[in-house]
Amino acid sequence: MTVNLKSCFTQYRTRVDGALDHWLPGDDIHPTHLHEAMRYATFNGGKRVRPLLTYLTGEALNIAPEQLDGPACAIELIHSYSLVHDDLPAMDDDDLRRGKPTCHKAYDEATAILVGDGLQALAFYILAHDDNMVDDTNARLRMCALLAQSSGSRGMVGGQAIDLAAVGKSLSLAELQDMHIHKTGALIRTSVMLAAYSKPDLDNGLIEKLDHYAKCIGLNFQIKDDILDIEADTETLGKPQGSDVDANKPTYPAIVGMEDAKRMMMDLHQEALDSLTPFGDKAERLRQLAEYIISREY
Amino acid sequence: MTVNLKSCFTQYRTRVDGALDHWLPGDDIHPTHLHEAMRYATFNGGKRVRPLLTYLTGEALNIAPEQLDGPACAIELIHSYSLVHDDLPAMDDDDLRRGKPTCHKAYDEATAILVGDGLQALAFYILAHDDNMVDDTNARLRMCALLAQSSGSRGMVGGQAIDLAAVGKSLSLAELQDMHIHKTGALIRTSVMLAAYSKPDLDNGLIEKLDHYAKCIGLNFQIKDDILDIEADTETLGKPQGSDVDANKPTYPAIVGMEDAKRMMMDLHQEALDSLTPFGDKAERLRQLAEYIISREY
Repeated sequence: MTVNLKSCFTQYRTRVDGALDHWLPGDDIHPTHLHEAMRYATFNGGKRVRPLLTYLTGEALNIAPEQLDGPACAIELIHSYSLVHDDLPAMDDDDLRRGKPTCHKAYDEATAILVGDGLQALAFYILAHDDNMVDDTNARLRMCALLAQSSGSRGMVGGQAIDLAAVGKSLSLAELQDMHIHKTGALIRTSVMLAAYSKPDLDNGLIEKLDHYAKCIGLNFQIKDDILDIEADTETLGKPQGSDVDANKPTYPAIVGMEDAKRMMMDLHQEALDSLTPFGDKAERLRQLAEYIISREY
Repeated sequence: MTVNLKSCFTQYRTRVDGALDHWLPGDDIHPTHLHEAMRYATFNGGKRVRPLLTYLTGEALNIAPEQLDGPACAIELIHSYSLVHDDLPAMDDDDLRRGKPTCHKAYDEATAILVGDGLQALAFYILAHDDNMVDDTNARLRMCALLAQSSGSRGMVGGQAIDLAAVGKSLSLAELQDMHIHKTGALIRTSVMLAAYSKPDLDNGLIEKLDHYAKCIGLNFQIKDDILDIEADTETLGKPQGSDVDANKPTYPAIVGMEDAKRMMMDLHQEALDSLTPFGDKAERLRQLAEYIISREY
């Protein structure tokens, strides 16, 4: 990661963490146990890639970051809730996340289910209620609808269902792509689109460019994850190396081979960069983020 | 139930079921297994009391029912998702709901968790996206925010957390009320408020009257449930008679005695009726619904 991007990353992470702290009920608010657990699940050392995408898209479009705090929080809360539910024993059954006990291990299963449910509701509360967001109420309703659709059964939740059904099966490349487009891609595209919708007069052609950029880096995020699972060591990764292979999960390297997986990644990276051409210098950090996604070591 | 209310009940139940069928993705839509399970969980023979409240409040305020189909669906989807999650083994661990296998029994736990997550997202999608709703986009954002708040950690989800923490403990009357105000009361009040918000120029005094009506019948719904659990027979109830007592759950009759529980119920009923005075004849069916809630046999 360039020094430049790293400090920008840190700055926006601090920013969204402050906004999350503002919106999450304090752990002294009734019911305290639940609110404490919601905070535990949200402040878990996450990389905040989705909020970063929202803010960096805002840079490309000259949107004040205050207008994007609400969308950035909403998208991260949806992501956090999905991790809590995905980690449950009935789902991926993970005990650790980023080296710390998962929510149902630190608390209990019932609390973890409720934590996820409460975080999801809070995401929509913020989008519908935050006065600092774009003034256009139509745009804000569109943002609520988009987040609901991309996180629901035809988006992220559907992707998790497809993923669970795929464990132990051999998937085609098209089926693998379909899973990731739902499971992680939809929310990553929404991270960019929530910023785009904050500029209600934005040209449709430019919206499509941004959406294509987001689609490419979303897929690359997953390809890189699959590659890291094989190539990185356990300590760097924060989870056992090769754990996806052990769990017999379908991955890009398993389906197309390591070499072709890396080639696909580089092709998508070029497509992502090409999509940013109309935005000129203002999209420089979106370019750096695309670069970071394929070069990160964990 | 009067013949009049019964036919109105049936008419609105048919109406909201049609709207739910419209909004729920078909079970031929990818991922089909998840969408089939979402439909199973929603079309489960529920009484649709919350949508009925929305439509009947609409009658009292001269709002066309088409404007309320979206809110009625949204509120029922939130209710349906909460039942699916509450029934999970880590929560209430129920195998049957209204005489049919619960969602995690008919499918599996992972699917049931995702069904609940997807139904919640769909509720917000409808409120943010339905073109037949009130035209005032500010009012619609307020509706999204209200549903998010009343279904979240400071409302329904918080109530379930309070409920789980209360099992096996002896509660005071105030603690029992607090639990029900969160767990069921918040959503019942929202059922009424979503109709009230569909009339953006409605006087604040009248909004408060409707809210108080909803608060009273919400509590009565729970008191009557507790009474039925002791007095009704298993066949009528659709669940084992005395099951709450067996589970050592706090109930109104257990805390204040059967006689005082019934007296509280009648007092709240009178308060509910008094709150409807300003609405005259147009609130007749809301009165009948209040009457139904305390006189029903299951």
